[in-house]
Amino acid sequence: VDAGYIKQGEQARTVREKQVRALLANRKLPPEGWDEQAIELFLSDLAVMDSNNFEGNVGVGEREARMWSGLARMWSGLVARRHYRLGHGIGRSGDVQAVQPKAAGSSLLLKLCTLLVLDALKLAGLTETKACLCLPVATGMAHVLTFLHLRSLRPMARFVVWPRIDQKTCLKSILSSGLIPLVVENKFEGHELRTDMDGIVAAIAQAGGAENVLCILSTSSCFAPRAPDRLEELARLCQREGIPHVVNNAYGVQCKASCKLLSRAMRVGRVDAFIQSMDKNFMVPVGGAVVAGADEQWMLALAKSYPGRASIAPIMDLFVTLLSMGKKGWTRLLKEREENFLVLKEGLVKLAKETSTGDGTEAEVVQEEVLETPHNPISMALTLKTFRMDDKQGYTYFGSMLFNRNISGPRVVDPAKKEKFGGFEFPGYGSHCNLYPVPYLTVACSVGMSRDEIKCFLERLRKCIGELRKKQRRSTHSFSSSSE
Amino acid sequence: VDAGYIKQGEQARTVREKQVRALLANRKLPPEGWDEQAIELFLSDLAVMDSNNFEGNVGVGEREARMWSGLARMWSGLVARRHYRLGHGIGRSGDVQAVQPKAAGSSLLLKLCTLLVLDALKLAGLTETKACLCLPVATGMAHVLTFLHLRSLRPMARFVVWPRIDQKTCLKSILSSGLIPLVVENKFEGHELRTDMDGIVAAIAQAGGAENVLCILSTSSCFAPRAPDRLEELARLCQREGIPHVVNNAYGVQCKASCKLLSRAMRVGRVDAFIQSMDKNFMVPVGGAVVAGADEQWMLALAKSYPGRASIAPIMDLFVTLLSMGKKGWTRLLKEREENFLVLKEGLVKLAKETSTGDGTEAEVVQEEVLETPHNPISMALTLKTFRMDDKQGYTYFGSMLFNRNISGPRVVDPAKKEKFGGFEFPGYGSHCNLYPVPYLTVACSVGMSRDEIKCFLERLRKCIGELRKKQRRSTHSFSSSSE
Amino acid sequence: VDAGYIKQGEQARTVREKQVRALLANRKLPPEGWDEQAIELFLSDLAVMDSNNFEGNVGVGEREARMWSGLARMWSGLVARRHYRLGHGIGRSGDVQAVQPKAAGSSLLLKLCTLLVLDALKLAGLTETKACLCLPVATGMAHVLTFLHLRSLRPMARFVVWPRIDQKTCLKSILSSGLIPLVVENKFEGHELRTDMDGIVAAIAQAGGAENVLCILSTSSCFAPRAPDRLEELARLCQREGIPHVVNNAYGVQCKASCKLLSRAMRVGRVDAFIQSMDKNFMVPVGGAVVAGADEQWMLALAKSYPGRASIAPIMDLFVTLLSMGKKGWTRLLKEREENFLVLKEGLVKLAKETSTGDGTEAEVVQEEVLETPHNPISMALTLKTFRMDDKQGYTYFGSMLFNRNISGPRVVDPAKKEKFGGFEFPGYGSHCNLYPVPYLTVACSVGMSRDEIKCFLERLRKCIGELRKKQRRSTHSFSSSSE
Amino acid sequence: VDAGYIKQGEQARTVREKQVRALLANRKLPPEGWDEQAIELFLSDLAVMDSNNFEGNVGVGEREARMWSGLARMWSGLVARRHYRLGHGIGRSGDVQAVQPKAAGSSLLLKLCTLLVLDALKLAGLTETKACLCLPVATGMAHVLTFLHLRSLRPMARFVVWPRIDQKTCLKSILSSGLIPLVVENKFEGHELRTDMDGIVAAIAQAGGAENVLCILSTSSCFAPRAPDRLEELARLCQREGIPHVVNNAYGVQCKASCKLLSRAMRVGRVDAFIQSMDKNFMVPVGGAVVAGADEQWMLALAKSYPGRASIAPIMDLFVTLLSMGKKGWTRLLKEREENFLVLKEGLVKLAKETSTGDGTEAEVVQEEVLETPHNPISMALTLKTFRMDDKQGYTYFGSMLFNRNISGPRVVDPAKKEKFGGFEFPGYGSHCNLYPVPYLTVACSVGMSRDEIKCFLERLRKCIGELRKKQRRSTHSFSSSSE
Repeated sequence: VDAGYIKQGEQARTVREKQVRALLANRKLPPEGWDEQAIELFLSDLAVMDSNNFEGNVGVGEREARMWSGLARMWSGLVARRHYRLGHGIGRSGDVQAVQPKAAGSSLLLKLCTLLVLDALKLAGLTETKACLCLPVATGMAHVLTFLHLRSLRPMARFVVWPRIDQKTCLKSILSSGLIPLVVENKFEGHELRTDMDGIVAAIAQAGGAENVLCILSTSSCFAPRAPDRLEELARLCQREGIPHVVNNAYGVQCKASCKLLSRAMRVGRVDAFIQSMDKNFMVPVGGAVVAGADEQWMLALAKSYPGRASIAPIMDLFVTLLSMGKKGWTRLLKEREENFLVLKEGLVKLAKETSTGDGTEAEVVQEEVLETPHNPISMALTLKTFRMDDKQGYTYFGSMLFNRNISGPRVVDPAKKEKFGGFEFPGYGSHCNLYPVPYLTVACSVGMSRDEIKCFLERLRKCIGELRKKQRRSTHSFSSSSE
Repeated sequence: VDAGYIKQGEQARTVREKQVRALLANRKLPPEGWDEQAIELFLSDLAVMDSNNFEGNVGVGEREARMWSGLARMWSGLVARRHYRLGHGIGRSGDVQAVQPKAAGSSLLLKLCTLLVLDALKLAGLTETKACLCLPVATGMAHVLTFLHLRSLRPMARFVVWPRIDQKTCLKSILSSGLIPLVVENKFEGHELRTDMDGIVAAIAQAGGAENVLCILSTSSCFAPRAPDRLEELARLCQREGIPHVVNNAYGVQCKASCKLLSRAMRVGRVDAFIQSMDKNFMVPVGGAVVAGADEQWMLALAKSYPGRASIAPIMDLFVTLLSMGKKGWTRLLKEREENFLVLKEGLVKLAKETSTGDGTEAEVVQEEVLETPHNPISMALTLKTFRMDDKQGYTYFGSMLFNRNISGPRVVDPAKKEKFGGFEFPGYGSHCNLYPVPYLTVACSVGMSRDEIKCFLERLRKCIGELRKKQRRSTHSFSSSSE
Repeated sequence: VDAGYIKQGEQARTVREKQVRALLANRKLPPEGWDEQAIELFLSDLAVMDSNNFEGNVGVGEREARMWSGLARMWSGLVARRHYRLGHGIGRSGDVQAVQPKAAGSSLLLKLCTLLVLDALKLAGLTETKACLCLPVATGMAHVLTFLHLRSLRPMARFVVWPRIDQKTCLKSILSSGLIPLVVENKFEGHELRTDMDGIVAAIAQAGGAENVLCILSTSSCFAPRAPDRLEELARLCQREGIPHVVNNAYGVQCKASCKLLSRAMRVGRVDAFIQSMDKNFMVPVGGAVVAGADEQWMLALAKSYPGRASIAPIMDLFVTLLSMGKKGWTRLLKEREENFLVLKEGLVKLAKETSTGDGTEAEVVQEEVLETPHNPISMALTLKTFRMDDKQGYTYFGSMLFNRNISGPRVVDPAKKEKFGGFEFPGYGSHCNLYPVPYLTVACSVGMSRDEIKCFLERLRKCIGELRKKQRRSTHSFSSSSE
Repeated sequence: VDAGYIKQGEQARTVREKQVRALLANRKLPPEGWDEQAIELFLSDLAVMDSNNFEGNVGVGEREARMWSGLARMWSGLVARRHYRLGHGIGRSGDVQAVQPKAAGSSLLLKLCTLLVLDALKLAGLTETKACLCLPVATGMAHVLTFLHLRSLRPMARFVVWPRIDQKTCLKSILSSGLIPLVVENKFEGHELRTDMDGIVAAIAQAGGAENVLCILSTSSCFAPRAPDRLEELARLCQREGIPHVVNNAYGVQCKASCKLLSRAMRVGRVDAFIQSMDKNFMVPVGGAVVAGADEQWMLALAKSYPGRASIAPIMDLFVTLLSMGKKGWTRLLKEREENFLVLKEGLVKLAKETSTGDGTEAEVVQEEVLETPHNPISMALTLKTFRMDDKQGYTYFGSMLFNRNISGPRVVDPAKKEKFGGFEFPGYGSHCNLYPVPYLTVACSVGMSRDEIKCFLERLRKCIGELRKKQRRSTHSFSSSSE
């Protein structure tokens, strides 16, 4: 082969290598996303740095990453390939972020992923973030790890003050950690449910004082008609009282308003850590969470409290996804979500007022309303007041209708539902309060949604309403919203 | 295309479907391993059952598994493909084993994997096992989850009685759970270190009685010269005293003797749960653990204490691997390990006595010995008594020599090493006792090792000894083992 | 797992199966493209129908498709996977389209691909097409096979009458078939080069009459300033004289005007077969061609003249690509190309008139013109008359400048270039005539190009012109186009 | 990440790069096979050298390899990935081995593959080979290309002298090339059929002398009871008479005796080219052939007669397979085939003499014999003389029984079968002669077969014989072999 062509080809390789070097130097999202080829090459390069992939490696008594070293011992090639032969996991016995000497490639991947996430958080508006920890456990377990770490710092504090949010994982994470939740009911403001600051203060007192409170666990992203918590007031209170403050920011990264709220809270008061789901914000499979905060030392200490190694899989997924997004892709994704939120809300408001569900019969008007939830920038709710509640074909049936039509996101909330859970009884479970005055359908506008999906959702929703109307006589049961 | 050929092709498909149906019916390892094609087809079939892969699915507000539904929204195809489009993870908010309605395929995969693991454990000799839980966290975190669950059952018990084993993850998992370890030093029996039963009893007393002991944490697989704990005596004691008994069976599944010992303990006394690493026993990447026991209800309760969902990745790796092994592959693998243990031991004993390291110089004899550790069926140790300790070129240097020659499994243990860790000071750290009388090289014979590797290890070891001998004058420091 | 969830999952599988059944029933491009998962599942289903993938197959003495049957014999898994385990190729000894009894899946794939291509050709405007043959050889070899087949029908005819097109493969395919080309020079019409019908008639006479002419080989897609041949006149002539007519439709499928021209020719006269490249029209890798025509029997006879089996790889690529496009994707792709052609032409016309190349120096005007080639709907040409020809930094250097700037499509044509080839001498080689009056840059607008690429091309082109202007004093050499 | 770990990782990368550099320097099979990771990395490196994968490439008007440059234009990612993004194919318009400037990577791959094949041929015993050409067409088309090339050298020669072999592709390749086969019947020598040298001489005379003979087409690998042709005599004759000699070495590479025979012929006489199947010798999918010979110039000229580009797929398959085999794997594979041949023959001889087919009934003896075919080192035949021929349940039925039991290699030959083909009538078609005295089952021992397969084949064969015996009374038709 002519040397000239080889030279040109080598120039091409050099371009790829520059891409890698730029990543290592900048430690930020690349301006443009990488293509799959570039990503796979880089993963292969990292894999070659792990000792299990060294030519001629002899891992006598080595107990990890054996699966693929040689052909004869391979169980199974399929597994090896899908992990790009990175099998050592992350961390060492004492620290989930520690460099693993046998796995320089895996360690580097984790380090880079952490830096990319940090950049992504800042770009999303979480400007006060100084450090973060990528954990291969979902948000629930990330809460547990955070609580256990706080417990090592405040061994006597047994209580978690917790403005009620009806999401089981959250409560379970408190209970699983051996802690006692002090549930603070929310307050109505119009249609919206908001943090009861007086209730918070009362709960601290109930705990016997700040020193017995492990932390306040607040929420920055939730389903309407609940609003995100009053993070600024809570942060100020925590600072004043010396109480740690953990924010459950489950799917808040994708939402500018949530990020701003959280950032303001960090500026004016105390936020020890905020926890976000990888899958809910970054379009990766379920299984990872990011704990972030303003204090690098705090985060290092948390990493050091993790016992042993862990799976690299969720980290690799996030790393690959962030590389393929690049800064451009990530910011576009966020921007589109903001736009989609408006489109979805507009569509739902329009639907609520419609006088026909499209099947020609004048009678099948929708006649519902979209709840006014100005503080919730990610979710909205449509009342279901015109549906009977005392019937198998009522609104509880409505949810399954949607699910069977492949509408898998929205949930129908029945204010009459009770639930016992972990020794606690929650009247009105699902609605974040003891008695929401009306049943409703709550829906969020998540990252990655397309306009076509919104359109399709509204169409199927309209159709379901029409079908259900036919099944039941219109209920006489009426509802006056508190805003009227 | 001729109908006859189509028919024959369809017969072929039927054969594949029979394979799947047999798996669903038998709920055991298939007699023969499946080939990759069959496994990938089955994974695809499972993926199609998950709602994110439904044709026409509209996940408005759906926050999980968005990554791949349609082309426009895909971040990233690479991630979607490597997980075979199974993105929902496992579990529901309240239970890591619960069926996820949106993810029938993922749920079925978890269920099947659990059944295959149960079968694999029984085949390995863990005959008393009745239930197990596949967790996408490594052994350290699996210990934490077990401790937290025990704590919900025994909220007042703060102490873990723990026969010393110098493995950091183990201690860290006690500390991270907010518990207090009561370390019981081991007793010498010849070269071997074994459980001090009197020390155990004393530790319980020190805790203020059985009711204050959360559990005894014993170990069934460890590096020589430590022996696995006296599980039968411990199990009897636990039953008598009403103390929970957790066994760290990290890499014990692969070893018949360890499994038998544990099974006997379960028959004669109390074992609440035993915990094993997925990667150390089943040749999958780091990141999963199996908690198993004799009580189905206990295991169900543990599953229910897990907060939220979790990654399916380690489960899928194990599922794929067990399917590709089949019963035949799995039992062969175990059998080969038993044989390899003997081969390795024989080789090491022979090496220890050699009068030349092969470089022609008569002086370079090995003159060491293999420690007598009859109770350790998985690991063995070679003394390094003839190497100087006061020298950079001594035995501490020996470990890095091996590592640089791609011998990544064995460890050199320096009895003079001290370590402070979690507030505890461990003299002789690494040797499981305060002062082992001699430095040594410890090596395990793990599942998946090949004869070629053993041969190659022995050759490189011999070469390293020879090289080091050249670098230093032979030490006059001599050692009399306690057995002499 | 709850039966309800399983049921829902099975419904999902049913949807997928319906998709397959619809494909088998409709035998056309699916309305919407399939996603990758659906395509891969279908490929796996087809693979299972091939005998090498039968469970328990024993291919003693079987000489094909051995590579993957079992693990022990696998050379190599990587190869098996990339072909989805379809290894039998296509065809039987006597017929490249024949069903292979050992490979029902491969045979079905070929059959379906042929039907999809037929549909795609019709959708593109080739409405008279009745049959087609997908060949795993590129256009050159497809021409050879067509010629050899024609020769079996007209054993005495040795001449191919061929309106000159400066594309080597075309001439080589005539020569390799052992035939004698009679080259007919093109005629100028303004800037354009068009078929000289008188020259064609003269060439037939030169051959000693129609019975000595194997076929006329015309061209329906070419680089400007050559125009596609006068297909209608040629088709009428062929019908009148009883001469077979083969059309080299290399990249004409992507262009509506070319397809219409060819269809008209088929209606008014004789076209035995037209040959198109897979890669140039359908965005697949190089290596396949489609021979199509209006006579099913003719096409069957051609298939039967193929000796032996052949690779399935190019067929599979096309099949996968057409499935993933669907009717919607394919028609959109064609429509975008038509639009892009106008955008590119407009941009080039604008560039030609520009008074500055953007670097601020007024002197660097472009001062060229886009040749008027109204009959070429796929390519266009920009004169390079203001560049010196007698210089290493002249227009011949221009081409390498573009290539080095990663502009790999366009070609600079030097009318003074001579080439000897297969015993023929071609003055003005590359320009389709003996002396084109001006050097030029010719560029095509192909399927799959994006607006960004067009923009980027125009920018880099402008920059190259500017740079070259700086390197040389402006030439005084001027040019009067024939249209002036 | 600590610089030391990075350094170690980089050492690992260096090892990989050394592997590549050694390949480029040695131009031979690597001593040991490469693992998949190394192969995939190298393919990716090659792909990066192709211009379609250059970052920022703008292929305006580029008509090839468009499929993957950017995400927006990708049809389809699946196709791009399975070809490792190498889409340019091989060759240029005038030469299938020419370097393609836009595809330095693809060109290099072809070059390397050719060198590896050359080495593999020599290792197999084809010691006189000086050059070879890897073609992405199967053996039939490779014969056509060879004939067409010979025709350009001997334009007047229309006849191919051809010792009869009943394999359709072979005859079809002569006919498709527009040539006239002169079939020379074989001669009996005991059970064996061998070349009739007098018949060859007579055929040359029939053609009107050597100058009218395009070539003699001989065969070096075939099914018993035909023997490979008398290559030495034929080569001497060709040299004496000045007639080109082409050897159809379809699956002869895998067999030492065939290779030796061919090498001797090359030493003592004339062999212009010999043609072998990729799939039948190297365990890759159907679709490629290798033309080889002793004259580099001859091979270069053949390459130059190929019109246009071609698919790289079969070349890549072979390249990957040879890299993964390495010299060690390839020679082991060949050795195992030699051993297996003996095992299979022994097993068949034993079976033929068996007095029971295993179902307990004494009557069901096999009572057949293995034909004596000492010159065929790759295939053997079992008589079926004790089966009735006048019956639907006779030996013709036997073949379908085997096929239905997944025995897909062996063929039952009915000496009474006639076939008309390409204007020729062949009595006894399948048996390579007009009337073989006995029906038989012919079976080859191919490369890649396992001992288990042989065992399984013999068992199923025995079972089929037993079953068929039950279905029919034993035939009285008896046979005396010519050797008796």
